[in-house]
Amino acid sequence: MRKIFVIGIGVGDPDQLTVRAVQALNRVDVFFVMDKGAAKTKLRALREEILRRHVKGRTYRVAEAASPPRDPAPADYRACVDDLNQAKQAVFETLIGEVKDGETGAFLVWGDPMLYDSTIRNLDALKEAGLAFDYEVIPGITAIQALAAAHKIPLNRIAEAVTITTGRKLADGFPPGVDSVVVLLDGEDTFRRFVDSKVHGDVDIWWGAYLGTPDEILIAGKVKDVAEEIHRRRSEARRANGWIMDTYLLRRATTPSSR
Amino acid sequence: MRKIFVIGIGVGDPDQLTVRAVQALNRVDVFFVMDKGAAKTKLRALREEILRRHVKGRTYRVAEAASPPRDPAPADYRACVDDLNQAKQAVFETLIGEVKDGETGAFLVWGDPMLYDSTIRNLDALKEAGLAFDYEVIPGITAIQALAAAHKIPLNRIAEAVTITTGRKLADGFPPGVDSVVVLLDGEDTFRRFVDSKVHGDVDIWWGAYLGTPDEILIAGKVKDVAEEIHRRRSEARRANGWIMDTYLLRRATTPSSR
Repeated sequence: MRKIFVIGIGVGDPDQLTVRAVQALNRVDVFFVMDKGAAKTKLRALREEILRRHVKGRTYRVAEAASPPRDPAPADYRACVDDLNQAKQAVFETLIGEVKDGETGAFLVWGDPMLYDSTIRNLDALKEAGLAFDYEVIPGITAIQALAAAHKIPLNRIAEAVTITTGRKLADGFPPGVDSVVVLLDGEDTFRRFVDSKVHGDVDIWWGAYLGTPDEILIAGKVKDVAEEIHRRRSEARRANGWIMDTYLLRRATTPSSR
Repeated sequence: MRKIFVIGIGVGDPDQLTVRAVQALNRVDVFFVMDKGAAKTKLRALREEILRRHVKGRTYRVAEAASPPRDPAPADYRACVDDLNQAKQAVFETLIGEVKDGETGAFLVWGDPMLYDSTIRNLDALKEAGLAFDYEVIPGITAIQALAAAHKIPLNRIAEAVTITTGRKLADGFPPGVDSVVVLLDGEDTFRRFVDSKVHGDVDIWWGAYLGTPDEILIAGKVKDVAEEIHRRRSEARRANGWIMDTYLLRRATTPSSR
C-alpha cells in the first residue's frame, strides 16, 4: 500500500514544525510540490530549508507539478473552487502515481491542513474514485496561532466565542453574535470597513504579515487609528516582496452576549 | 531581567510540541506547575514525559503551587473567572519569584496559550502592576487541530466561516451565521440539543476525547444517530479515568450564507 502524509508546516519559521512532523518528514520517499503564484520562489526556498534542516541521513525524491490556474475574480467563488479542486485532483493523481507500493509520499501544507486548504478534500475525492492509498494528517501551527503569539494576546475574550472567516465574508459585515473575528485570505484590507466607530463601536485590530519570518510586520491599535498605516505598510511590503501573507484579529468593544 | 516562556505543549502526544517549543524547554531554569482537579495525576505524568523526552543535558528546577480553587457552578461565570484570575496572579507572582535575575522560567500550557487560557492575561496584569520580567509566547497544537487531524476533516466548508465556542454558549443555540462550530469546555454534552432534525436540520458531529493519547476515542456521524453513543462512551470513560478532555465539531447541512 502507498502511504501519504499531509503535514502542516506552519507559516514561515522552519522550527515551527512539530516533532511529530519532523518524524514524518524522515519517513518520506517522495515530496510533492505544487507551488504557484507570486510567492512561489519564497515558499519553495522555505520548504527547501525545512527539508535541509530536518531530514537527516535520508535521500528523497521531489515530484513537481504545475498547480492549476485559478480565476482571479470569479463570479461564483464556490463553483470556482470546485472546478479548481477537480483540476487539482488530476494533478494529485499524477503526483501520487510517483509513489511506488510500500513507499511514502507527502504534501507539505502551509499552516494546518484543516483550515482553508483543499488537500484533505482532494485526497478523499481520489480515494472515493478508487485510487489506492492510505493517508495521515499531521497538524501544523496556523497563521492565527503565529499572530496571537507574536502579539502576545488571547484569541478569545473570557468565556466568549471567536469566529474564523475570510476577507470575502467579512465584507458582508462583522459576523453576528461574536466580539472577536479572525480574518484570513483578505486581499482587500476589508478591516477598513470598520473605521467608523459611530457605526461599529470601537473596534481593535491586531495585524501581522510574514509571521515567523525575518520580514514579520506587526501593527495593533484601534482600527480607526491604524487602518491607513496597515494599508500603506501592506501595499509597500507586497510591492517590495512581490507577495504578502497576512492575517488579523478584529475585536469590537461590545460583546453581543453581554448586551 | 527575568525571562518567562509561555509554551503550548499540545493536548496529549509528547511529540506534538514544535521544534521551537523544544528549543525553549532547553533554555528553562524553572518550570512552573499548577495542576488541579481530577486530571492532575495524568497531566503531571504527561508533563514529566515531555521534559524527560525533550530536555537534554540540562538541570532544571520545578516550582510548584496549588491552583486556586474554582467555584464548580458559579452564578456569574465571567465574574468567577475574574476572581479566579486575581487569585492566580498572586500564585504567579510567587512562582515567578523563584526565577533569579538572568534566569528563565516557563509555564507549560495545554493546547495553545491563545485559546481559553488565562496565562497571558495574568502575566499582562502582573507586568502592569510593576512586576519585572519579559515573556514570550510559543504556540502549540490545539485540541481543535488534533481533532481535525484524527478525523481527517477540514474544519471549514469551502470559503465558509467557523466559530469556536464553549459548551456554555452553545446551550443558547447554534451560533448565527455559520454552518460549522467547534465546541470546547463542554461538560454537559450540549450537542444533544441538536438531535431533532425537524428543528435544526441535519447536523453532523465529529467528536474526540483524550486526543493524541493511547486512550483516544473518536466518534463521527449524524448527531441524531450518535449523540447517545457519545454520551455513553464519554460517561464510561470519565468514570474509568477519573477525568476527560474532549472536543467536537458540529456542522449543519444548511450554510446560512448560501440561503
